[in-house]
Amino acid sequence: MIQSLHQDISDLDTGMEDKTEKVNILRLTAESTSEIEDTVVREFPLTIVLNDQELVTLLCSPADQKNLAVGFLYSEGLINGRDEVKNVTFNEGTGVVRVETEGGDVLAREALFSRLITSGCGRGASFYSATDVTGKKVESPLQVSVSAILALMKDFQHRSETFRATGGVHSAALCDTKNILVFNEDIGRHNAMDKVFGECLLKDIPTDDCLVITSGRISSEILLKVARRNVPILVSKSAPTNLGVKMAEDLGITLVGFVRGKRVNVYTHKQRINRGGI
Amino acid sequence: MIQSLHQDISDLDTGMEDKTEKVNILRLTAESTSEIEDTVVREFPLTIVLNDQELVTLLCSPADQKNLAVGFLYSEGLINGRDEVKNVTFNEGTGVVRVETEGGDVLAREALFSRLITSGCGRGASFYSATDVTGKKVESPLQVSVSAILALMKDFQHRSETFRATGGVHSAALCDTKNILVFNEDIGRHNAMDKVFGECLLKDIPTDDCLVITSGRISSEILLKVARRNVPILVSKSAPTNLGVKMAEDLGITLVGFVRGKRVNVYTHKQRINRGGI
Repeated sequence: MIQSLHQDISDLDTGMEDKTEKVNILRLTAESTSEIEDTVVREFPLTIVLNDQELVTLLCSPADQKNLAVGFLYSEGLINGRDEVKNVTFNEGTGVVRVETEGGDVLAREALFSRLITSGCGRGASFYSATDVTGKKVESPLQVSVSAILALMKDFQHRSETFRATGGVHSAALCDTKNILVFNEDIGRHNAMDKVFGECLLKDIPTDDCLVITSGRISSEILLKVARRNVPILVSKSAPTNLGVKMAEDLGITLVGFVRGKRVNVYTHKQRINRGGI
Repeated sequence: MIQSLHQDISDLDTGMEDKTEKVNILRLTAESTSEIEDTVVREFPLTIVLNDQELVTLLCSPADQKNLAVGFLYSEGLINGRDEVKNVTFNEGTGVVRVETEGGDVLAREALFSRLITSGCGRGASFYSATDVTGKKVESPLQVSVSAILALMKDFQHRSETFRATGGVHSAALCDTKNILVFNEDIGRHNAMDKVFGECLLKDIPTDDCLVITSGRISSEILLKVARRNVPILVSKSAPTNLGVKMAEDLGITLVGFVRGKRVNVYTHKQRINRGGI
């Protein structure tokens, strides 16, 4: 089945059935044995072909593959906006997403490999703290209250059905201060965020003055993705790394971690968090 | 500071101090504000140079970098045994591990990139289920009881100090049926396992007829690492993916997941699990 961008700009949700699989297992304790049917999450090797050049294979959850491909290409700097994307097709049989862009004969494969192998080298950690990765700091007057963050996180955690069924998936979401606007989930925390940003790009959903929520740890790579989309506030139920904190500081991003129960930790750019009730 | 393999074959444990960092944060609830000092886990960009050729930069925890480099090279098939490794040095200032091997002018960079970009393509998921990735199935008469697995997991969870302090680290361990033999932890679940297997390789610790425990999800990439070391039993407190289950079946590996409380799930090659008490 080949889906074209022009027929259907974002993937249909393929539903729980396709993202998980039933397996027969033994459930054992020291005293008892039972044969039961269990649900495991599916892992799908997705190959991205950019302008007829094979670029990379990502291991991902089998849904929203076009969003993932476009989000990945954007995060890696290989495309810079919706208008560059001429066509996106997904062939489920071969597991290949083909993306065609304007001016499509750039040396993307070499550029990507070069970034993958040289990032940090020679320059060490300094690469990761430089705002020249994205070119600019995020500037936004957005303010959000602690209560709003706690409410968004509660909604976010209710949305992740696959995680609850199988215990093996990360989620990501774009939100305004009241509602989740775009939600996705994947076996990889990077993929979940690329799927959200890919949908934003393909549907022209603005991300300035928004929040992004992730279920996963906040590392330097996650900060780079968020900065590319000019998002001012990043929220996680998990912990950041020191490099995540340093990059958030340098990139002008408000970092909120360990959002659990009724409290939050604010690591950087605290002026965007309204300490009042609502 | 440069450490040579000949002076010190495995890295000294650099201790908690170096794997984490203190940061000043705001802890907020809807009603209260407190400024506190919090601990975050450090993230270190480590560049691996193989025979003077820059190969890859891994984002990792800043400890046991030589074990990580050697374990990574082994997992990726770029080295095949201890005797191929002539020298390993780590320069903390530049963040570079240099590995010299016998017959060192292989096209490692091209081989690695080729694997990273072509795995799965054209062949789709079939690549991941083929035993020809590792060349053979794991054959081992090892048997272990449910009680022993539960006891090992309890010990394993007590060992991960960094995780308890910061909530951001994965652990991996090599065990016999009674004790943890090699333990490590890292911000990445792949890195934690490569650090364990790197130490095994550098110290000539055999891994046949052993168990490996991981805190992380069991995906296809983890199965490949374990199969490379001929380990017959893989144990996790987390869930496997469907591809992880399929590869374990194909590779002859006993997969035990969701080891929590007093029960375990056995997914594949159940003959190695002794259902009796001890």
